[in-house]
Amino acid sequence: MNIEFTKGHGTGNDFVMINDFDGVMDLSEEAIAQICDRHFGIGADGLIFVTRTENSEVAHLLNDEPAAEWFMDYRNADGSKAEMCGNGIRVFARYLITRGLSEIVDGSTLPIATRAGIKDVTATATGFAVDLGRWKVDGGEFLVRTSGLSVARPGLGLNLGNPHVVVALADMAELEGLQLHLAPTLEPAPRSGANVEFVVLDDPLITQGVASISMRVHERGVGETLSCGTGIAAAALAIRHWADNGQNFWRVKVPGGEVGVRMFPTQDGEHVAISGPAELTFTGTFSL
Amino acid sequence: MNIEFTKGHGTGNDFVMINDFDGVMDLSEEAIAQICDRHFGIGADGLIFVTRTENSEVAHLLNDEPAAEWFMDYRNADGSKAEMCGNGIRVFARYLITRGLSEIVDGSTLPIATRAGIKDVTATATGFAVDLGRWKVDGGEFLVRTSGLSVARPGLGLNLGNPHVVVALADMAELEGLQLHLAPTLEPAPRSGANVEFVVLDDPLITQGVASISMRVHERGVGETLSCGTGIAAAALAIRHWADNGQNFWRVKVPGGEVGVRMFPTQDGEHVAISGPAELTFTGTFSL
Repeated sequence: MNIEFTKGHGTGNDFVMINDFDGVMDLSEEAIAQICDRHFGIGADGLIFVTRTENSEVAHLLNDEPAAEWFMDYRNADGSKAEMCGNGIRVFARYLITRGLSEIVDGSTLPIATRAGIKDVTATATGFAVDLGRWKVDGGEFLVRTSGLSVARPGLGLNLGNPHVVVALADMAELEGLQLHLAPTLEPAPRSGANVEFVVLDDPLITQGVASISMRVHERGVGETLSCGTGIAAAALAIRHWADNGQNFWRVKVPGGEVGVRMFPTQDGEHVAISGPAELTFTGTFSL
Repeated sequence: MNIEFTKGHGTGNDFVMINDFDGVMDLSEEAIAQICDRHFGIGADGLIFVTRTENSEVAHLLNDEPAAEWFMDYRNADGSKAEMCGNGIRVFARYLITRGLSEIVDGSTLPIATRAGIKDVTATATGFAVDLGRWKVDGGEFLVRTSGLSVARPGLGLNLGNPHVVVALADMAELEGLQLHLAPTLEPAPRSGANVEFVVLDDPLITQGVASISMRVHERGVGETLSCGTGIAAAALAIRHWADNGQNFWRVKVPGGEVGVRMFPTQDGEHVAISGPAELTFTGTFSL
């Protein structure tokens, strides 16, 4: 079976996209893991099937509005299913628009169906913004130990659909000295683990109304990654929580680039959105 | 500029191949590094331009025989030029044959021009064998320290066109406990660094005439890799040197698979050859 694909990335978080408009492609977890392997396969952080919502039973069950034409059927690099990916959905939007499958008319939103419900994507000057929806401070305080830090540091637990623990460091030297190939240890240990974000406040923190921080992240089950969309939102939310400064516009620098974060009120409570670039890198064909 | 490519690997050591039959393609080191980047580009351990020897001034200068039709113009992932790659040349041979650019008639050799001279490739049941040519024990003994080993261990220096230091460990637990993302330190420090191979003798060492060892490798300037062709040959040569057992047939297990090593006499002294699989994984197009 020959399969055509397109590869893309958002701040270095990279994805293989495969057309499955009719929702009939049935690749095993092993096949997906092989495709995502960086030496034996194509190589990616995740695989996204591009499927019409009307042809996906799952998308119908999870999204009660019929407003989203396209379903982002996201799979992790190990083949397992995932609810959402903040960087992946921007690349998905870039793909839909570049291929002429959808469009964003000036100022309008592109609703995309995910396993975490419908997400609204809008165009920005440098890429796309996606509304991640509601969030909460959750799970309280942790003691975090990691290679490169001599003593344990306090971390704040947040939930953005997936669990995060955010740790503030003193300066860039501390951030750069971390060895994040090893998983940080959390005390108490969260039931199903957590992504851990280490952040440093830039100086000055706020310039022209935008607060700026630098961040590195260890994703549970993966290791250090170049970028993590929900982790970026969690980092900005944690700093705002500690600073209690009502700051709603943020710029987060990660190893793979720069992502914006914005908090804003809605009828169902405060939402958080991230915005950043999304690029298509190459197209290809492989056989399975 | 749209460029077509083919991706392939030999025991997990992976390469982007680009046709440049006329030897006119002029990609900068930065462009090659971007292509080899695993998140922002295609991703590979190296890039190989497929060039006719007659169209390459370099290949003419370095290969005095006119016997090789094709020149493997090998570039490292950082864009710099390299003499040879023991896994890459097998993938290069697979590419030439699959694309109908060359053939290996039963029992004959396919000569391939490289920056280290012409190398002879032959077909095997599972892939290809390549004669790496002469080698030498070089640079004597080193003390090797690495993360995961509590005390320094002795290492033997060998030269296979590039420098290697081979260290024998006690058992698989020691081998698996190494943390090779960090470079081992060598005492005395070799002028231009060295690849460091850690090996464990399998038990029984020799079965049906073939000696079997397990190995992990740290490649200088790269980190731990799934396989290293010259390092595999160096490992077998070092063990034979220590054991002084005249054993000329070896099987070396690396994280990416299994590679055979054979030593044999020639008119210009003993040669060492490695044999192993070579697979093409996908084709694609990217724009620069």
